[in-house]
Amino acid sequence: MCNDSSFMKIAINEAKISLMEGGIPIGAVLVKNNKIISKGHNKLIQNGSVILHAEMDAIENAGRLSGEDYKEITLFTTLSPCPMCSGAILLYNISRVVIGENKSLMGAEDLLRENGVKVDVLNILECRDLLLNYIKNNQLQWDSELEKVGNSTNIF
Amino acid sequence: MCNDSSFMKIAINEAKISLMEGGIPIGAVLVKNNKIISKGHNKLIQNGSVILHAEMDAIENAGRLSGEDYKEITLFTTLSPCPMCSGAILLYNISRVVIGENKSLMGAEDLLRENGVKVDVLNILECRDLLLNYIKNNQLQWDSELEKVGNSTNIF
Repeated sequence: MCNDSSFMKIAINEAKISLMEGGIPIGAVLVKNNKIISKGHNKLIQNGSVILHAEMDAIENAGRLSGEDYKEITLFTTLSPCPMCSGAILLYNISRVVIGENKSLMGAEDLLRENGVKVDVLNILECRDLLLNYIKNNQLQWDSELEKVGNSTNIF
Repeated sequence: MCNDSSFMKIAINEAKISLMEGGIPIGAVLVKNNKIISKGHNKLIQNGSVILHAEMDAIENAGRLSGEDYKEITLFTTLSPCPMCSGAILLYNISRVVIGENKSLMGAEDLLRENGVKVDVLNILECRDLLLNYIKNNQLQWDSELEKVGNSTNIF
């Protein structure tokens, strides 16, 4: 049986893969008609990429889809999407976003909702714990990344 | 002497490099203190990348900068930036964007201005001609890309 919770588990697994690679544990999955189209995870640390957030990585890994495909896609992400990832969601008319948690960092959810995207927040403790443990173990690096944006908006 | 016009010429040259690679002629440059930090161009066709728009490519090619660096950067782009690229500009607090043209496709300039980004449009004919000629020579492919977003918002 495929439901939001089971797809979020795949996104959480992507977050764990990132952690195993030495990276920030944030993962994402694109789903269409209850089938996984692509997966991705944050690659800031392991690839030195400032654009390959989990959501961007999943969108890129899906390749060139049709407009009809994009409209039927749900994006699952373990963390509330930042302005860049939210912009990509709007660009490609992805109609629904399911978020693991938004307590550790809040993304641009308002921008998504204002533009008609259905946003559901599951408030899954495991998503939050994965990130907060990473922050605790990498506090100096984390502070340095947050300094880039100078506020509490999600930058990952 | 370095001014907006001279940096836009470098962005236009990036657009031409993309064209020579068989890609969409859109280019971008990041500038800090009158020095070029990085360059980039659209890589949808040549790399099959749906996230490497010219602005994203330039931001990625700049590597991991500090928050202070980002604040002092001006992004030059030959075409009005799409929602994804505009989100990236907001994410990294890039304070100024100089746009070659916005007549062929309008991007998310309002979103940038609403969030305090200084946006200047130079209305350079060469930027527009490069893109319109490309569209004319690749009409079917272009229509297929526009179908993805279902409206006239810039998707490149």
